[in-house]
Amino acid sequence: MHEADFIQHLRTIASHPAARGLMDDAAVLDVGNAALVLTHDMLVEGVHFLSDDAPADIAWKLVAVNMSDLAAKGATPLAVLMGAGLARDAAWNRAFVDGLGTALDHFGAALVGGDTVAMPSGAPVTLGLTAVGLAPPGGAPARSGAQIGDDLWVTGAIGDAGLGLAARKGRISGAPDALIGAYTRPQPNLRLGRALAPLVTAMADVSDGLLLDAQRIAVASGLGIAVDIDSIPLSDAWCAVRGDSVSDRIAAATMGDDYQLLFTAADNSAGAIATIARASGRIITRIGQCKAGSGISAVSQGQPMKLPARLGYVHQSPER
Amino acid sequence: MHEADFIQHLRTIASHPAARGLMDDAAVLDVGNAALVLTHDMLVEGVHFLSDDAPADIAWKLVAVNMSDLAAKGATPLAVLMGAGLARDAAWNRAFVDGLGTALDHFGAALVGGDTVAMPSGAPVTLGLTAVGLAPPGGAPARSGAQIGDDLWVTGAIGDAGLGLAARKGRISGAPDALIGAYTRPQPNLRLGRALAPLVTAMADVSDGLLLDAQRIAVASGLGIAVDIDSIPLSDAWCAVRGDSVSDRIAAATMGDDYQLLFTAADNSAGAIATIARASGRIITRIGQCKAGSGISAVSQGQPMKLPARLGYVHQSPER
Repeated sequence: MHEADFIQHLRTIASHPAARGLMDDAAVLDVGNAALVLTHDMLVEGVHFLSDDAPADIAWKLVAVNMSDLAAKGATPLAVLMGAGLARDAAWNRAFVDGLGTALDHFGAALVGGDTVAMPSGAPVTLGLTAVGLAPPGGAPARSGAQIGDDLWVTGAIGDAGLGLAARKGRISGAPDALIGAYTRPQPNLRLGRALAPLVTAMADVSDGLLLDAQRIAVASGLGIAVDIDSIPLSDAWCAVRGDSVSDRIAAATMGDDYQLLFTAADNSAGAIATIARASGRIITRIGQCKAGSGISAVSQGQPMKLPARLGYVHQSPER
Repeated sequence: MHEADFIQHLRTIASHPAARGLMDDAAVLDVGNAALVLTHDMLVEGVHFLSDDAPADIAWKLVAVNMSDLAAKGATPLAVLMGAGLARDAAWNRAFVDGLGTALDHFGAALVGGDTVAMPSGAPVTLGLTAVGLAPPGGAPARSGAQIGDDLWVTGAIGDAGLGLAARKGRISGAPDALIGAYTRPQPNLRLGRALAPLVTAMADVSDGLLLDAQRIAVASGLGIAVDIDSIPLSDAWCAVRGDSVSDRIAAATMGDDYQLLFTAADNSAGAIATIARASGRIITRIGQCKAGSGISAVSQGQPMKLPARLGYVHQSPER
């Protein structure tokens, strides 16, 4: 469907600085004495969620993916507007709204408006959410600020949601609930984003795959990033189901749906980052380094290794 | 698809005052020293537009319907975010983006973000736009502020877009281009909305039918509104194709897609409103009066008359 061409063409009309060239997780718009962080993400049945996913889980994910963008900019949520293209029965709709309320309460965002449409017969449930947040006092970090010599860091563990999706589709068996939960209930951490924002030089969320999102930081910042594959953090659940070989770590780093924070920071920030990790209870792992060059490269056991052909999930077909 | 139930249920979780009970055209959110006006409207192929409508016209309408909500709150557009569910070929997409750029330039709104998704095979083009505006200095008028004794006014002519849609569907022939244009290129007037905002007690746009939108003002304001059917303004093009009988005026007032401004104002504002009409070049017509009671009533030749069963367009089926 030529998505990449469409976005490229959109960029030619998105010249306002708030748009950040449509290259960032969110827009940053100055209004009066405040800076707003604005993001809009869609979820479409058959593309981003399975038809038999629970409606409350879909509502959670709709909110969470947008909150993840705010977290990556260190923002505090204010309000959301929802566009709901409905295609199910009243019980589904009711469970969806109940789940939406739970998710909005959890993240501290208020539903203030939107639109509701009955989709034509046979069309998928199609959801869009706009989140409005307040930028942190020091400004919202961009994807483009990484500096040569900076370290690359990631929060949490990578790959669990991808493995959870594989389990939901019956492609693997015996997956612990933790993996399914990583897929159905992603947990972006707004407080962690705010704590990190003053320290980072660039920050993004991991939505389409660690390697792909690292590549985007490298491209936006105009430098190279060497990713240490051996350092990619895996959960115990992942290791039990899949293993921790280099190919397992590559698989985890190309799966997407993690909604962790990926950021760069000067090497003298490592102590402050460790302090934030302890306070948040979420691990934060150094997984690479910024250097002269362009795009990402991979290292294992100190040696360069070939990157996989596919760095992450690029939406091109309804099946994933 | 139980849209009304869904919205009713959403209201139970939309308790923030910025949401205005999900009863207004837009949310009004205080941020720092500014008040934002926020709206999100969707357009779905087969529901809000025809499959063979020109992509640039669809882009225009996507922007215009959201700008109409801002106009009804006297707001000045700042930025938009778009959720685009694509389902056509590259040429369609390109024409759509070109049209989007034209419309955004016309209304002075900047594209700052959004999301793009390739819809599953066979699914309709599904578009959502969030518009962010700045409220007028005196505050954004609500639907709920009408007072007993106020006059009801409407800008422009009513019914042209509905007749244009009928012509596009081949249900009438010989329709002048002006009618088709009213359907394909609605012209919300932001400057007029800003000029009127300080004078009005309540304001809304006419999106779903004049009588239905008047009914919503009456309900939100907790009073009755007597609509003088003989005063409903019709264009020359409408009169040439359809006529100007009472039933013709009722038809015009229940069609929708007008994107005119409907507002109430104290009777001593009539002179100021006439001055604004002259300055804007758009007619503004007094079409009714607010009184004690509940809901709208219709008057013709000074006598009460029966309201039609259907006051406007309520989205319930894909066909309209």
